[in-house]
Amino acid sequence: MKSTVDLLRSRMREQGIDLAIISDPTSIAYLTNFQSDPHERQFFFFLPLEGSPTLFTPELDRDRAKSLVSYNIVSYHDSENPWQKIQSFLSRERYRIGLEFQHLRLRQYYELMQILTGQIVDLSPTIEQIRLYKTPVELDYLRKAGQMADHALALGFEAIAKGKTELDIIAAIEGPLRSQDVSMSFETMVLADKHAADPHGVPTNRPLKNKSLLLFDLGTWHQGYASDVSRTVAIGQPTVLQATIYDIVLEAQLAAIDAIKPGVTAGEIDAVARGIITKAGYGEYFNHRLGHGIGRNLHEFPSINQGNPLVLEEGMTFSVEPGIYLPNKVGVRIEDCGLVTKTGFEAFTHTPKELLKFKL
Amino acid sequence: MKSTVDLLRSRMREQGIDLAIISDPTSIAYLTNFQSDPHERQFFFFLPLEGSPTLFTPELDRDRAKSLVSYNIVSYHDSENPWQKIQSFLSRERYRIGLEFQHLRLRQYYELMQILTGQIVDLSPTIEQIRLYKTPVELDYLRKAGQMADHALALGFEAIAKGKTELDIIAAIEGPLRSQDVSMSFETMVLADKHAADPHGVPTNRPLKNKSLLLFDLGTWHQGYASDVSRTVAIGQPTVLQATIYDIVLEAQLAAIDAIKPGVTAGEIDAVARGIITKAGYGEYFNHRLGHGIGRNLHEFPSINQGNPLVLEEGMTFSVEPGIYLPNKVGVRIEDCGLVTKTGFEAFTHTPKELLKFKL
Repeated sequence: MKSTVDLLRSRMREQGIDLAIISDPTSIAYLTNFQSDPHERQFFFFLPLEGSPTLFTPELDRDRAKSLVSYNIVSYHDSENPWQKIQSFLSRERYRIGLEFQHLRLRQYYELMQILTGQIVDLSPTIEQIRLYKTPVELDYLRKAGQMADHALALGFEAIAKGKTELDIIAAIEGPLRSQDVSMSFETMVLADKHAADPHGVPTNRPLKNKSLLLFDLGTWHQGYASDVSRTVAIGQPTVLQATIYDIVLEAQLAAIDAIKPGVTAGEIDAVARGIITKAGYGEYFNHRLGHGIGRNLHEFPSINQGNPLVLEEGMTFSVEPGIYLPNKVGVRIEDCGLVTKTGFEAFTHTPKELLKFKL
Repeated sequence: MKSTVDLLRSRMREQGIDLAIISDPTSIAYLTNFQSDPHERQFFFFLPLEGSPTLFTPELDRDRAKSLVSYNIVSYHDSENPWQKIQSFLSRERYRIGLEFQHLRLRQYYELMQILTGQIVDLSPTIEQIRLYKTPVELDYLRKAGQMADHALALGFEAIAKGKTELDIIAAIEGPLRSQDVSMSFETMVLADKHAADPHGVPTNRPLKNKSLLLFDLGTWHQGYASDVSRTVAIGQPTVLQATIYDIVLEAQLAAIDAIKPGVTAGEIDAVARGIITKAGYGEYFNHRLGHGIGRNLHEFPSINQGNPLVLEEGMTFSVEPGIYLPNKVGVRIEDCGLVTKTGFEAFTHTPKELLKFKL
């Protein structure tokens, strides 16, 4: 199988690009398997069409990079000017240079343009396109991340009890996972009752209470790949409104998943879920897209949103997460991430989706 | 007292800038008190020199923004083109436009330049300059974040016991904090023995053992402001090498803190610590700068590094964190963040710095 570097180089050849400068740390990890967060320091992967690639990294990362990467490594100390160091190994003459427009900062661009001359081409769509089709190894990581997300939900469900708060539930999820070397891919959300109606709500020390819904949204990392899952459960007997809203969201989520197969567009999948919610009279309260791609980034290409003409193909991975948020009343979201298969959709998470009921 | 928006506007007036486009979410939070992570969505604060500012935000955040921000708010749905929406409220004619070169992505830049005409000016240094001097409110948040970091260390120290692993210690820190609504400002590091010699080392399920050092590096958020602290403690009786390295790092850290006062340069402070470590023969094993600014970003301006001519002034806040990392042998770092005062340095963390010894 072609390496990710080979895949990119064949696209570069097609586009006449003789140097790719990769600046997004997740793209660098995708191409080199070396994952790092450089904070405000400079971190690049210079990939010429011919000749040896160079990983440019802060000194702090040099040894770890050397142990993982077989390419040239050039590192710089905090006391050095990184741009001078880059100039020292990069030949000036280039015809077409590919940059990640979606990631490169304007300051970095100006600094690089002091060093290089040549025509600039946006590489972001090319890299998105390559990363869009997950390899078997990537799928294995995504499935394992999904299993861990199911486990995290189970920990949360177990912790539901009288006197517990949203934050207690979160601690009961994250503490044990941390001991097992699992880190979360984003801040765990456990939101009760009307607070779940704010999709960017913040968990607090509110004690759980009966006749409320509890929305979980959480994810984990596995080998640099993210999981992301949402479930909404009932505490005590749900009200008629709560049960109604839940049923509509569940119907929308199941129908959208059912509609996924190669050849259908992202926009059509969004429309399936949105149609059901709109028909039920709650269209305006489903105020976000149906889903987002997932992989090395929690959110990546493709976006599953209204009108997106992107045709789904085998190997693409994304979330399906309809929700209804009635301000000050009730918030429900149900989310699975999964893979477009030859014939349908393989979810990475398997926590039951009928409305689970817990007692305090 | 002048608001942060007023402070920025007076700098804009000096520089003849008639429109600032703020793209860094921490800068937006600094100016509006509205904090959000837009992920891959578009999020800007448009600040004209005269007239009303506009916060441009994803629909998802509209209600929360409205409840917190008194400026105009324009939001966009995932199904809308954000750039068309921006075009609809922004007048095209501008003389000089300030952009955050350190943050703005090349793609965003090109999109904005389709909408606006005018000369482009880098606002990043101006905003860094304003944010460099912390206000009393900001200092209050930083002190409280520091108290929480001390508390986090105490939780970690308490958890040291036979059979416990690095990850167990981390769980014992993060679990209780999460229940108390405290989130970490970065992934907590607890690294034992030679693994602490890798400054980007990763905690594992290695059980703690005697005759080793244990390096803690952790931080918390308080009201959007970060803390960051490191301590290294001994498990059992330290070896001569361990104790020697510890003493050198401690001497370097205390001497650097002692040297801080208005009028001294950042480079001089780095040189004090580096001089002590170099004189002891370990200069090459102190392979990072002495410190970084801290505030709404975990790492921000100023950088306390070799040769930095920046003159320290009252109100600046940064870390002082010398370390020695002998590969495969021992890693020690001691770090406090604090404030340059009229006469010296006020640390935000107060966990003891003499070598603490724990028994398994």
